[in-house]
Amino acid sequence: MKITCLQENLKTNLNIAQNIVGKNLTLPILNNLLLEIDSGRLKISSTNLEIGINTWTSGKIEKTGSITCPAKILSSFVNNLPNKKIELETKDNTLFIKCDNYKAAIKGLSADDFPLIPKIKEKPIFVFKKSEVLKNDLNKIVGSAALSESRPEFSGILFKIAKESIKFVATDSFRLAEKTIIRANSGGQLNSLIIPQRTIQELIRILGEKPSQEIKFILGDNQILFELDEVQLISRLIDGQYPDYQQIIPKNFETKVTLSKDEFINNIRIASIFSSKINDVKLVVRPEKIEILSQDPDLGENKSQMAARVQGKSMEIIFNFRYLMEGLANIGTKQVFLGLNSDEQGTSPKSNPAIVKPVGEEGYLYVVMPIKT
Amino acid sequence: MKITCLQENLKTNLNIAQNIVGKNLTLPILNNLLLEIDSGRLKISSTNLEIGINTWTSGKIEKTGSITCPAKILSSFVNNLPNKKIELETKDNTLFIKCDNYKAAIKGLSADDFPLIPKIKEKPIFVFKKSEVLKNDLNKIVGSAALSESRPEFSGILFKIAKESIKFVATDSFRLAEKTIIRANSGGQLNSLIIPQRTIQELIRILGEKPSQEIKFILGDNQILFELDEVQLISRLIDGQYPDYQQIIPKNFETKVTLSKDEFINNIRIASIFSSKINDVKLVVRPEKIEILSQDPDLGENKSQMAARVQGKSMEIIFNFRYLMEGLANIGTKQVFLGLNSDEQGTSPKSNPAIVKPVGEEGYLYVVMPIKT
Repeated sequence: MKITCLQENLKTNLNIAQNIVGKNLTLPILNNLLLEIDSGRLKISSTNLEIGINTWTSGKIEKTGSITCPAKILSSFVNNLPNKKIELETKDNTLFIKCDNYKAAIKGLSADDFPLIPKIKEKPIFVFKKSEVLKNDLNKIVGSAALSESRPEFSGILFKIAKESIKFVATDSFRLAEKTIIRANSGGQLNSLIIPQRTIQELIRILGEKPSQEIKFILGDNQILFELDEVQLISRLIDGQYPDYQQIIPKNFETKVTLSKDEFINNIRIASIFSSKINDVKLVVRPEKIEILSQDPDLGENKSQMAARVQGKSMEIIFNFRYLMEGLANIGTKQVFLGLNSDEQGTSPKSNPAIVKPVGEEGYLYVVMPIKT
Repeated sequence: MKITCLQENLKTNLNIAQNIVGKNLTLPILNNLLLEIDSGRLKISSTNLEIGINTWTSGKIEKTGSITCPAKILSSFVNNLPNKKIELETKDNTLFIKCDNYKAAIKGLSADDFPLIPKIKEKPIFVFKKSEVLKNDLNKIVGSAALSESRPEFSGILFKIAKESIKFVATDSFRLAEKTIIRANSGGQLNSLIIPQRTIQELIRILGEKPSQEIKFILGDNQILFELDEVQLISRLIDGQYPDYQQIIPKNFETKVTLSKDEFINNIRIASIFSSKINDVKLVVRPEKIEILSQDPDLGENKSQMAARVQGKSMEIIFNFRYLMEGLANIGTKQVFLGLNSDEQGTSPKSNPAIVKPVGEEGYLYVVMPIKT
């Protein structure tokens, strides 16, 4: 193959493709990117066998063909070149690169041995008009999935495409984040998909590299394709039934608190300095104020208070400060709402989940389990 | 003790003192800061037994006394408080802190068990007028000392105070950096001191936290004190004789090269992508240009070229790119000078050191050994 293209375009697409490439010792070709001329453009592909990425770069083509090259070397080299024309040419499994006063020869492997990235040719089940908005929405929930795969469905993100809304949900059973988008267009296929967290993290990263544009969700055989103008991300789906999480979202609250988000975050941050190994901070809700307390038997203790609008009864409730902070960090409004219920007593005592949500903005909901007292 | 001071002042001084405090399991009091009322101010001290730091904070004192407290907890807590008045009070080895709506109680240990930081009461051997300039000068050389302590004198920084100049020197025998300052005032004691690299790194950090001011170098019994307005840094000195490094600095060159620093750095960075395990890049010096080459048998190879003013004979010479980059990174001028000599052949062949220095600015010199061909 032989093609001339612009450094800036090639750099962006190499960076998009190379991030999923790891150090694979058993199958060295997975450390490589596949470069091939495809319908008049340079196609660059990568795969880690769970996720595949294709990108296309325009250029002047003199000869078709293909090669695979070590991803890190190729992208490091191109990243450091000046923003001028780059000429790529292959000879005997070596990629020759020329740009300005720079020349390199990178040893590659034959494209024949590169794993096939599945092609999905179905119609989109959903089209999202602004990829920038999708990126921000997914960012609000992606961190709440479980790291462990002991329950595989919790290690993924739920995409629930219903007639009037689409919901993105993540939970690890200690906390749950849900982002709801009202659909303007009720067409397409209704569906519930569980997508690996890593895939969504990659999608967020790719959306950050490209200008906002339309993005299509296309469903294949236990796989999903996210399609942008010059980029495709293909991932496996997670098998299984997502738990019926709606039933754990409390609808009524013994105590409703409205307070300043930034001040609350700062108070929790300070309390976290003194919290014990289980990351516990205690909230003491009183009329018109909330106290934030923490204590470690070896270090000492801490107490702060802030004004709050409190409806309902006074109560004391303990949270893992990391979970509470995570929910607050995804809220963009000045005021936040806390909905609290006290523990159930009796023969089988249990904690009741609390909710955290923005004030004056719909669509985001964060549910967090208190620590049992 | 009981004192009220401003959060901002206390924060700065806690941050200066706490950095040398590590996790010491055998002597837990070394994880603490010593707080004591000293001549009408709050004195905060830390030590790791090699380096000691004292800082003083002004405030309104109601009661004298002292305590030691875990450094990380105290500084994290104070760092997160608003910039308002802070009240510190001790009761039974507990430090009580109040600020705005925040309260904490930190468990401490008695000040009696805190190691003594030596006091040095001599006259200064040298006074540096502008600590900001000293910081920048030390930054240019501090990275070139040896990490290993197999030759202890190479693990330190040489301060050579002569009649007409003061020199700061660091080397690990593969490269050497020297910064020379012409003295306006030839008084004080002439001396050669070797100061641990860690001490100089701490000094640079502290100078960055404080506005530029006068700094005194005071010599004690195998110890040195750096004295600022409200901060003291005390360190042991390294015993031993610093090697006579002047003799290895070449004075004459077979080849003299003048070239653009930024372009040279970029060329070396690109070449480094393809360099082999010994970090080698080759310079090919030709009339009016220099070529930069690198090669790894598994990855491939790279070649770039740039314009240069070359006097003397053409030559090929190989460097460790990390050492070359380190010297170039400390040069602020647009053009740099390379002075090169070829290998000595014969019965005991050896490489001759090269020098790198700024063009149009005196005082900084970097010597680097080529890799034998």
